[in-house]
Amino acid sequence: MDRLREAVGPEACSNRTADLYTYGFDASIHHRTPDMVIQPRSTDQVSEVMRIAYQHGIPVVPRGGGTGLCGSAVPVQGGIVMDMSRMDSILEISVGDLCCVVEAGCVYQDLNDALAPHGFWFPPSPGSSDACQIGGMVAANASGMKAVKYGATRDYVLGLTFVKANGDVVKAGTRTLKDSSGYQLARLMVGSEGTLGIITDVTLKIAARPKTSAMVLAAFPDPEAAGRCVSAIIAKPLIPSSLELMDSVSIDAVNKALGNPLPDCKALCMIEVDGEPEIVEKELKIVEEVARSEGAITVEATHDRKAMNRWNNSRKAIMTSLAALRPGYSSVSLADDMVLPISKIPAAVVAYQRIAEKYDVTVATYGHAADGNLHTKMLLDPNDADSWQRGEKAVDEIFEATLALGGSVTGEHGVGISKAPNFHKERSSVIPTMVEIKKAMDPKNILNPGKLDQWEGSILRMLRYPCSEYQD
Amino acid sequence: MDRLREAVGPEACSNRTADLYTYGFDASIHHRTPDMVIQPRSTDQVSEVMRIAYQHGIPVVPRGGGTGLCGSAVPVQGGIVMDMSRMDSILEISVGDLCCVVEAGCVYQDLNDALAPHGFWFPPSPGSSDACQIGGMVAANASGMKAVKYGATRDYVLGLTFVKANGDVVKAGTRTLKDSSGYQLARLMVGSEGTLGIITDVTLKIAARPKTSAMVLAAFPDPEAAGRCVSAIIAKPLIPSSLELMDSVSIDAVNKALGNPLPDCKALCMIEVDGEPEIVEKELKIVEEVARSEGAITVEATHDRKAMNRWNNSRKAIMTSLAALRPGYSSVSLADDMVLPISKIPAAVVAYQRIAEKYDVTVATYGHAADGNLHTKMLLDPNDADSWQRGEKAVDEIFEATLALGGSVTGEHGVGISKAPNFHKERSSVIPTMVEIKKAMDPKNILNPGKLDQWEGSILRMLRYPCSEYQD
Repeated sequence: MDRLREAVGPEACSNRTADLYTYGFDASIHHRTPDMVIQPRSTDQVSEVMRIAYQHGIPVVPRGGGTGLCGSAVPVQGGIVMDMSRMDSILEISVGDLCCVVEAGCVYQDLNDALAPHGFWFPPSPGSSDACQIGGMVAANASGMKAVKYGATRDYVLGLTFVKANGDVVKAGTRTLKDSSGYQLARLMVGSEGTLGIITDVTLKIAARPKTSAMVLAAFPDPEAAGRCVSAIIAKPLIPSSLELMDSVSIDAVNKALGNPLPDCKALCMIEVDGEPEIVEKELKIVEEVARSEGAITVEATHDRKAMNRWNNSRKAIMTSLAALRPGYSSVSLADDMVLPISKIPAAVVAYQRIAEKYDVTVATYGHAADGNLHTKMLLDPNDADSWQRGEKAVDEIFEATLALGGSVTGEHGVGISKAPNFHKERSSVIPTMVEIKKAMDPKNILNPGKLDQWEGSILRMLRYPCSEYQD
Repeated sequence: MDRLREAVGPEACSNRTADLYTYGFDASIHHRTPDMVIQPRSTDQVSEVMRIAYQHGIPVVPRGGGTGLCGSAVPVQGGIVMDMSRMDSILEISVGDLCCVVEAGCVYQDLNDALAPHGFWFPPSPGSSDACQIGGMVAANASGMKAVKYGATRDYVLGLTFVKANGDVVKAGTRTLKDSSGYQLARLMVGSEGTLGIITDVTLKIAARPKTSAMVLAAFPDPEAAGRCVSAIIAKPLIPSSLELMDSVSIDAVNKALGNPLPDCKALCMIEVDGEPEIVEKELKIVEEVARSEGAITVEATHDRKAMNRWNNSRKAIMTSLAALRPGYSSVSLADDMVLPISKIPAAVVAYQRIAEKYDVTVATYGHAADGNLHTKMLLDPNDADSWQRGEKAVDEIFEATLALGGSVTGEHGVGISKAPNFHKERSSVIPTMVEIKKAMDPKNILNPGKLDQWEGSILRMLRYPCSEYQD
């Protein structure tokens, strides 16, 4: 403890009860209190902390904005939570070199605010834009609405600095737009969820901001028709800048919470096109035509920024609207982030609703349909063990259906705890190599231990909710 | 030997002298005869061969089209060359899912010919498009002229199957547009040059083909002005689909060999823009204006396909033109693939020419300037040890200048043998982790041993040329 205080200064090192409690959460269903919270200010400090932790075998869990939905930042074996939020500088923006360099704790939206005057951006657009940090985005390979056209975080990482379990500092990748100079360790760190090293700065490729955008809102009589619309747009080929699908549960929840901003229908597609004004105009027409020919009941198009914001806000309000839908129930993230071949979207939406009925749970399905990424939220009574049990069974079947359709358990949120058991099913051929790499890079297993392949048994452990059956 | 014949069938297994000699080369300066050539037809056969090789500790070097320029496919410790060219099927093209699945031996151009009727392509466009194979492209993170706008191979790999040193088959990544389901092993395999596993099939994201394109040819009085033009275009922001720079040596060589297809000048930029016709028109005008305002002597623009082909062919003719420039001399690939921050391109071109003068060697500099990737070719007398020695010193200084400017020794060709010593200098913080991963995944060091971090000493060993000083 004294050595850790010395390494980072006493003000950056806390074991006060309130801090420990707070840093035991992320946005998942899990909670576990760490033994200490450290807020480093430099790569050197991170390195020094890791040397001490390595020597004493203390678990260290790096933490970004705490917006993760599957428990990646929950310290399941206690130890140190390394909160990166004080390392939030934008170190460099170089339009001429098409890149920027930021510290890991830099908030996504802060970076985009700084890039905007130059006519550039870092496009992945996670739902938690205002709070999530670049380091966390890299650790989860985060993305969001814009990934179909602009790619996920992994497609923008040119280089990064990370600190290994033993404190060694590695400068991976480059400050150039490409490289084939040895193993792409920067890309290996993407999606590693803090289990291979602590990312301290990141060099990102930046993209030219689209000049303008427009949107279409198309209401469908069933999810199959909405799904056909997605495939037909892609097959044109026309790659929209975003294409959000909402099922009837999501639509109803938002309409109840916000006073009917959305058409009353069984499924809808919210489609955005962006770029040069002439192209936006042309693509908007194509999207409208496709939506109509695939059976849309109503099709609205707009260039008006206010109208687009209203639609986007309705979409973003799904999580909060669901939480208000049923008093005493919570909207939880369990099977929250499946990704499928685009063509399987309709089958998946239908399958998820059937499973919800079977287990008598309310499930809302929505997401970035054009890149195959579907979210579900589930309403559960957090105090009722039976509600959790039905939920867990539904989750397992949702994942089973996803894998049967050729999908994956997570597209942009990561595995953490919540997806670990089904991740085991999906990745049986990959896990032995993951274990080898983990062991080679973190031989004492101190970096975010107990997650991914290391989580054993049910996800109904270390819950943040006061359901006594599931407290450890 | 008998077990290997059994595993793949006698016709797919050769130790005839002519075969062994041929498969000792790639397009680099190196040669070493293997003990056997195996041409598998399935992942199962590759797995079976690896089990046998693992048991007996036999080196195995996977080989794609043999177009590599740095010796990645040369079997420096003998053993088996695994020629993937019979596994050349396109297994699936799914426009609806924005992806395709190919066997590793599929030739790049064959894939794009198959994608074209659907309006899609796999854009990286390496110079060896007609011969290079997708597996080799992944192993090298290959790219080419289009990478500035469309990215390198690493940005398209969604999933792949690879066979480990011990014969285990790993299905890495997904058939979905994104995933954050565990370590991104598919992306770790990118750029691993056959040292971590043998790639047998690859799932690639596909992109919508641009509808049309147009080009500008701008001649400059010096490389600095050409470099300023590159930066000014990017800063607009305008991301061209390709931007090739040629220095005076490259221009002279092509003009001599092909009868003056290019303007006689000190540096030129060949700039392509692509997309929807309206945008191409708009961007073409911007490019012309920028070129003029940055001091271009002449600026030509064209939409004519024949004229564009003529320009592109002049650019592609640099290698062969150089080879014809000085009788008895060979055009060799040594410092052939540096990548720099875009803004450092002019400084690099000037530095490389000074180094050429210092060591009295002819050096042509050209490349994909908008993504910072510069190639040099060197004319050496392959029978003259002194010529090689001056060449090697010049190469070391070219790499030194590149690293001092914040660049990397290789942008798209890989490290192999030719860049190993300078790769060591560039990657001192990365190599220990590479060694750990290599040891974990290939504990007997049988996969393409002796390359990258394992190459020791000068690159002037195992030369393909009859210079007795450098034969092992």
